[in-house]
Amino acid sequence: MIQISIRPCYADTDQMGFVHHSSYVKFYENARWEAFRSMGMPYKNIESNGILMPVIRMNMQFIKPAFYDDELFISVEIEKVGFTRLRFSYTITREPDEAISKAETTLAFLRKENYKPCRIPDFIEEMLWQEAQ
Amino acid sequence: MIQISIRPCYADTDQMGFVHHSSYVKFYENARWEAFRSMGMPYKNIESNGILMPVIRMNMQFIKPAFYDDELFISVEIEKVGFTRLRFSYTITREPDEAISKAETTLAFLRKENYKPCRIPDFIEEMLWQEAQ
Amino acid sequence: MIQISIRPCYADTDQMGFVHHSSYVKFYENARWEAFRSMGMPYKNIESNGILMPVIRMNMQFIKPAFYDDELFISVEIEKVGFTRLRFSYTITREPDEAISKAETTLAFLRKENYKPCRIPDFIEEMLWQEAQ
Amino acid sequence: MIQISIRPCYADTDQMGFVHHSSYVKFYENARWEAFRSMGMPYKNIESNGILMPVIRMNMQFIKPAFYDDELFISVEIEKVGFTRLRFSYTITREPDEAISKAETTLAFLRKENYKPCRIPDFIEEMLWQEAQ
Repeated sequence: MIQISIRPCYADTDQMGFVHHSSYVKFYENARWEAFRSMGMPYKNIESNGILMPVIRMNMQFIKPAFYDDELFISVEIEKVGFTRLRFSYTITREPDEAISKAETTLAFLRKENYKPCRIPDFIEEMLWQEAQ
Repeated sequence: MIQISIRPCYADTDQMGFVHHSSYVKFYENARWEAFRSMGMPYKNIESNGILMPVIRMNMQFIKPAFYDDELFISVEIEKVGFTRLRFSYTITREPDEAISKAETTLAFLRKENYKPCRIPDFIEEMLWQEAQ
Repeated sequence: MIQISIRPCYADTDQMGFVHHSSYVKFYENARWEAFRSMGMPYKNIESNGILMPVIRMNMQFIKPAFYDDELFISVEIEKVGFTRLRFSYTITREPDEAISKAETTLAFLRKENYKPCRIPDFIEEMLWQEAQ
Repeated sequence: MIQISIRPCYADTDQMGFVHHSSYVKFYENARWEAFRSMGMPYKNIESNGILMPVIRMNMQFIKPAFYDDELFISVEIEKVGFTRLRFSYTITREPDEAISKAETTLAFLRKENYKPCRIPDFIEEMLWQEAQ
């Protein structure tokens, strides 16, 4: 779908000399919101429309270590659009065909006013539908 | 195996008012190293014995939101001891029987001198064996 | 005033092998809220009373490095109570008389309903007054 | 000297709805290393030349809150080049002339082999000298 590039910063490293695995959660989140932005819907607009999208499931694989200041590329795909869920898959590469990490995240939809789960809002479903054309 | 308690701090929260999912990675890591400490082997001693234990796979489920300053309990189990892998499972509760998050992590063993994967070191296997008695 | 103990976690380290200076911000914040808790006023109660206390100034000195899993002690003092500000000072030690970091933070008071600055609320002023007895 | 732009990510926010003050430490660090990169000396090259540059002092002012996904601009200046210290100053703006945060950091030089403080290395002094021309 889209690909973004990021550079792990110094605070992302740990004493092994690798990028700590907690930092990948943020990298994947950034890639996800850039995917929304590229579809014309920055995530902040979703929240200002009264919808929150918390992560309810996340799987990550760490295949090779990443290092400080590496230029990394994250590609994002929408894996599944459900009635109440949205699933994304991601791959991080450094060189072409060198996957260093993969992940999947599943997000739910909550109404901001009462924090109750809800069905996928029409404006998000339409945006994803147009994207799929 | 063991249970530790933690309190999410203010920096762990996000603008949804929930503890951000990236913070759980750190909570689970802390619980894992406290499990090692309780077996008489703080993780820093493992590193000073020349072994690094990077996470190579992590799955997390977020069932209910956690909030700033909640008292949370993380229980840790060693799920599987393999030749080259160690798998842990975790549950976070706030009230008894109220799971708010679950996770599994798989760790590998690397020699610190050359960053090469290796078999589970004897001193770790023996510690786990004694624990299982 | 009070002293708390903390252990830097693995994610707090960086590739120098030291605790990264961004993590100290969280340590100091934790110490500050534990100081409030010890006065009978957990910070979440302050927010539920409609008051936010953002940091508006922070100075930190890093005298010696801290390491993963060190047992560190943070002592907190209220340095100054102003009409619209509260200033805290902190020292982190590992061994007695071995300061490894010092800091000062100044906090303001905002009304949660409109994010406007306000005078120190009576319930906070009274709590600090009792503490000073 | 140089200006970079950054966007605070979701994990940078806290339950006040603001970017948490600990995240600014990372923003300032990123700006500093981009300043080095722009002078032809990425920080990782400094480390591979055997020199570490830990922060030994940091002052931050938070003038206005920053929000998720704001486009922020950080300008960096080298404030002072000493025999054993380097001091940077920074301003973060959102709109021109709207400073939302300012900071100063002082860095020391350590030899990586023994973690001992040392004089500013010639290759760094020369780079800064050329920059000042």
